[in-house]
Parts: sequence; C-alpha cells; structure tokens
Amino acid sequence: MPYPTPRCAMCLIGPTAANPQNEASHPSVTAFIRERESTVVPESSNQQASRLSVVSEAKMASEPTRIMLAVNESTIKGYPHASISSRKAFEWTLQKIVRSNTSGFKLQFLHVQVPDEDGFDDMDSVYASPEDFKNMKDRDRARGLHLLEFFVDRCNAIGVACEAWIKRGDAKEVICREVKRVRPDFLVVGCRGLGPFQRVFVGTVSEFCVKHAECPVITIKRSAEETPQDPVDD
Amino acid sequence: MPYPTPRCAMCLIGPTAANPQNEASHPSVTAFIRERESTVVPESSNQQASRLSVVSEAKMASEPTRIMLAVNESTIKGYPHASISSRKAFEWTLQKIVRSNTSGFKLQFLHVQVPDEDGFDDMDSVYASPEDFKNMKDRDRARGLHLLEFFVDRCNAIGVACEAWIKRGDAKEVICREVKRVRPDFLVVGCRGLGPFQRVFVGTVSEFCVKHAECPVITIKRSAEETPQDPVDD
Repeated sequence: MPYPTPRCAMCLIGPTAANPQNEASHPSVTAFIRERESTVVPESSNQQASRLSVVSEAKMASEPTRIMLAVNESTIKGYPHASISSRKAFEWTLQKIVRSNTSGFKLQFLHVQVPDEDGFDDMDSVYASPEDFKNMKDRDRARGLHLLEFFVDRCNAIGVACEAWIKRGDAKEVICREVKRVRPDFLVVGCRGLGPFQRVFVGTVSEFCVKHAECPVITIKRSAEETPQDPVDD
Repeated sequence: MPYPTPRCAMCLIGPTAANPQNEASHPSVTAFIRERESTVVPESSNQQASRLSVVSEAKMASEPTRIMLAVNESTIKGYPHASISSRKAFEWTLQKIVRSNTSGFKLQFLHVQVPDEDGFDDMDSVYASPEDFKNMKDRDRARGLHLLEFFVDRCNAIGVACEAWIKRGDAKEVICREVKRVRPDFLVVGCRGLGPFQRVFVGTVSEFCVKHAECPVITIKRSAEETPQDPVDD
C-alpha cells in the first residue's frame, strides 16, 4: 500500500475550540504527517514572537485568526489530488488574506470523506468480511491523509501554522458540525461556480454552508481558465 | 447646516478598477475629508516600502488586497451614525483580516443612499421647486460624507489605506454594479442575522450580494449582545 496509515485513532479527531493548540497531548494529523516526512519545521522568529506575545498581550489581539478550509479530492484526477476548487480557495486565502503576515493566521484543513458504498473495487462485496471493511476504512484514511499532505506541506514551506483532520459523513453537514465544535474565525469553501441548472445535480455544499455554518463564510469560485471542459468536473 | 458639502461632483464617482489609485487626477471623498479635517497622515515606512516594492516585484504579489465594505446608516440612531452591522463588519475586518499588516490592505467604503420619497421634512412637497430638490440632494450628500468620515477617520488613525464614495439607488443592485466596476478582491457586507420570517419584510441586501456580486463575498452578522430589542433595528 503506497499510503501511510495513522498510528492512533486520535489523529482523526482534529482540534477543539476549547483547546485548539494542544498538539502535545493530542497528536494531530499535521503532527503525524510532519513526523512521517521527517520535515522538522523550525519555528521562525515571527512565530516565536507571536507565541511570546500571547502571554504579554490581551488574548484576543494576539491569537492568530483561525481560518477553516474545507478541502476535497478531485473528481477527475482521482485520489490523492486536491480538487481544482480546493486548491483555488487555498491559494486565494494565502494570496489575498494571509499575504506576508504568516504568523497572524492559522489554517485548519478539514477533509470530509463520503462513505463509499461502491468501495469494494477488488473484492466481492457479497463475501466482504469485517476484515474487508476495516481494510477499506484504513485505505480511505490513508488516502485522506495523503490529500491533506498537499496543503500541510505548502503551509510548512511558507511558515503558516496549520492543522488538518479527516471526518466521515455528508460533507455539508459535517462541515457545519465541525464549525460549531472548532469555532474558527471564518470558513473558506471552494465551489465550482455552476449555474442553477447544473447545481441541482451535483449538490451545493458551499450554498448550504453559507446559510447554516455558525461563522462567516467566504466562497471562492474557480476562475474560467481553471474550469475543465465539463464544468461539473472538479 | 452642520455637515460639509463636497466641492465637486467628481467626489462621488469613486475609484475605478482601471485606475484605482488615481487620487491626484480625481479627488476622492477620502481626500476631501482628509483635507477638510486637516489630518495629514504621514506615509509610514511600511507603506513606503510597499510602494517601492510595487516597482520591483511582480504586480500581483505587492498590490494591497482591496476589500470593499458596503456601509449604511443606522435605522435607530439616525444620521450620521453608522449602523450596528456596518460597524461590526468593519471592526471584524480590521481585527480578523487586516490585523497588524496595515500596508497589505486597502479598504473601499461604498455608501449607497436610497432616494427618499419622504425627504421633504420641512417643506410642502406639492410646491417643491427645483431648488428644493437640489437642497435635499446636497443635504443627503453631506450626511453621507459625514457617515463615511467615521470609517475613514478610523482607517487614517491606524494607517490603513482607504477610499470612500457615495452612490444613489437600490443598495443591492448598486453594490453589485460597483463590484463589477471597481473589481475589489472581495466584498464584506454586514447583516442583521434575522430569521427567514423577519427577513422577508426588511430586504436582504447581503443575500443578494452573495448570489450576484462578481467577487467573493463575506457576510458578517451582528453578535447577540449587539442586537437591539427589536432585531429589525440596526
């Protein structure tokens, strides 16, 4: 199997609002990926200064702005490539919001996996054993981690703090539930920018989040030149 | 009359996408307010550095992120106070997006005035002369400038570049038209956070902008403690 498997189930719980920074007592996917890749990112002087200022200044002013990004895989390129919309939303956030102020923001990547009924590619589903189910879940989880790695590596490279975690379920409902739990300052979601007719058939995660997420939401559309031949693809 | 009147009609045209920085050939409301208040804001070393980097670096990377904020007056406190939602959206933008990176952003305040059919408070509308109409328009414009002054002064105080202008018409349509013309990186709109029942009766500028503005839009709701007794008030 080409993808890593996480060593503990806790890795997939993600951050909490009450204790968002607690990586020591609760290893996050980020920490896991960092360790696996042996990419030890030294704390920049900016980050050190920011950490010190947490103690000295008022809590509200010095805490980084926490931006949750909902990311998903591409429907045309297959795992583990990030979708065009996710990459667009991510790059937009770095370019237009974070800019050079890398210590002022913390990105929180949430990847929601939809439980796949047709996931038994290489086995007869009639005879699927509990072991088969477990293998499928492990494989999904490994693929999800690999997907998140794309975003985490990029953040590490430019020195922006980040967290990443995976949840399973209906994307739009899970995103809103995670917003409620983690309480980011705002949520960024990519979208395909489809017209009302095409939208009906492909679901509208971004629209649901704008209406129901308990935090400000910003929707980033793909640009025209990034849109594949069939705009439903992503 | 306690409010200033602008000296030229050009003051109300606002910035353009093609020439967003051109304050010299086209005096903006901001420049006007600055001059009137005699508040000469010295360019910080950050801003100087940023300006120099425009020349040396790629244009995309060094240009400040242009955030358009649609601001309106309070419905309960009367002119020239900014509405609770507008102030909330503004403070949120400073606190969560701009943070300490004051040279990385430019705020663009758009105030849309709804032509008021009942604006002849102190005259008999049956006998309103062309002069009366002109006076009313001048008064509205002066009040609008005074409203914008609140935001511009705050930006000047913390050293964030800004522009401000006034348009007349239906707020949601004018905002979308101005987005198309000025091409900000994103739009921030405040909203009252009303339920679907209350929303029907008070209009939904923010919802319309999320759907129709040709740029990413972020909607900032008032917090519970900022909501007046009747949530329709703002």
